[in-house]
Amino acid sequence: MTNLAAVAVMVGITSCTGTDQAAENNKCNATEAVIENIMTRTSVRRFSEKAVAKDTLDLLLRAGMAAPTAVNKQPWAYVAITERQILDSLDAVHPHAHLAGASAAIVVCGDLNRTLEGRSQEYWIQDCSASTENILLAAHAYGLGAVWCGVYPDDERISGVRRVLQLPENIIPLNVITIGYPAGENQPKDKWDPEKIHYQKW
Amino acid sequence: MTNLAAVAVMVGITSCTGTDQAAENNKCNATEAVIENIMTRTSVRRFSEKAVAKDTLDLLLRAGMAAPTAVNKQPWAYVAITERQILDSLDAVHPHAHLAGASAAIVVCGDLNRTLEGRSQEYWIQDCSASTENILLAAHAYGLGAVWCGVYPDDERISGVRRVLQLPENIIPLNVITIGYPAGENQPKDKWDPEKIHYQKW
Repeated sequence: MTNLAAVAVMVGITSCTGTDQAAENNKCNATEAVIENIMTRTSVRRFSEKAVAKDTLDLLLRAGMAAPTAVNKQPWAYVAITERQILDSLDAVHPHAHLAGASAAIVVCGDLNRTLEGRSQEYWIQDCSASTENILLAAHAYGLGAVWCGVYPDDERISGVRRVLQLPENIIPLNVITIGYPAGENQPKDKWDPEKIHYQKW
Repeated sequence: MTNLAAVAVMVGITSCTGTDQAAENNKCNATEAVIENIMTRTSVRRFSEKAVAKDTLDLLLRAGMAAPTAVNKQPWAYVAITERQILDSLDAVHPHAHLAGASAAIVVCGDLNRTLEGRSQEYWIQDCSASTENILLAAHAYGLGAVWCGVYPDDERISGVRRVLQLPENIIPLNVITIGYPAGENQPKDKWDPEKIHYQKW
């Protein structure tokens, strides 16, 4: 332990480096950071004009592709959009996408050429939803705001998004994630409801 | 700035408290903690005998209920299980649930009495998948291991889980999340594939 770290411990200030205790504290802080990020994420629909960089979208997509996926099929594909004209065209085919004031979007899609077979094909929806949640959580961690705008299973929205983005037939858009830097404060909803929990059996 | 913090900055050791720079560093660390948690989460199927406390399961469920949900319907319900006999009974009706060596499980369910109507009823699957991903990420943050074992849309698994947990007709089990303290190391898969990203259009 360095002298400085020793002093820090003595006076109750936690150093970020250098001691086992500090490592343990950092671990606790990491846990808290993750939980706080989950608990404070909320849908953001109003954005500043600040552009979202392509590199930032790639970071979100790294998080998206780290999702669990049934039998490791990874049946996902993504369209990352920053061009104003395409954002506006998407906005025109989705009634609640809030894209007019947003500088970016990610469309999360299922690739039917990569799914399981039979009824299990439907696992693409679960896989792509988990991927979407990773993207939303990563966006929140990077100080971005985002909102999950459902597309599938609405046939009209699917065909509209498909037309704008020129998606092939095997690609089904699950949602449009509208992304930007938040304008103003956004309070997360408190959705905790212990009555929805059953212990051992229903 | 305290004298100690001033010294810490001078010698290049970041204090966790007390300065604007430290606050900024903590913010960066929080971002990194969230991203690392997403990137290192992986399916864990081998567990130590250490029991998972009910309070810990409740923390996971708090994370689960913080997920986004279409039109704020929150169409989820959960069964949290720690009783050995019920875990074993569940294991008998799911071919890949890995429950024999696990000390807990959460069954994430959709509540058809709380969904949107018509075709939009299917959004419960996306909502409950996002909730599941939150639970998996929170479990990883708390040092637990977990694995998402698909139930819906497999009719045989649905009826098996329904029978064991005495679920009412309106409750559909989406998955069994098997949970415990990990035995051994678990390496996350690298699923990053830039070919799955399309920019602006397909």
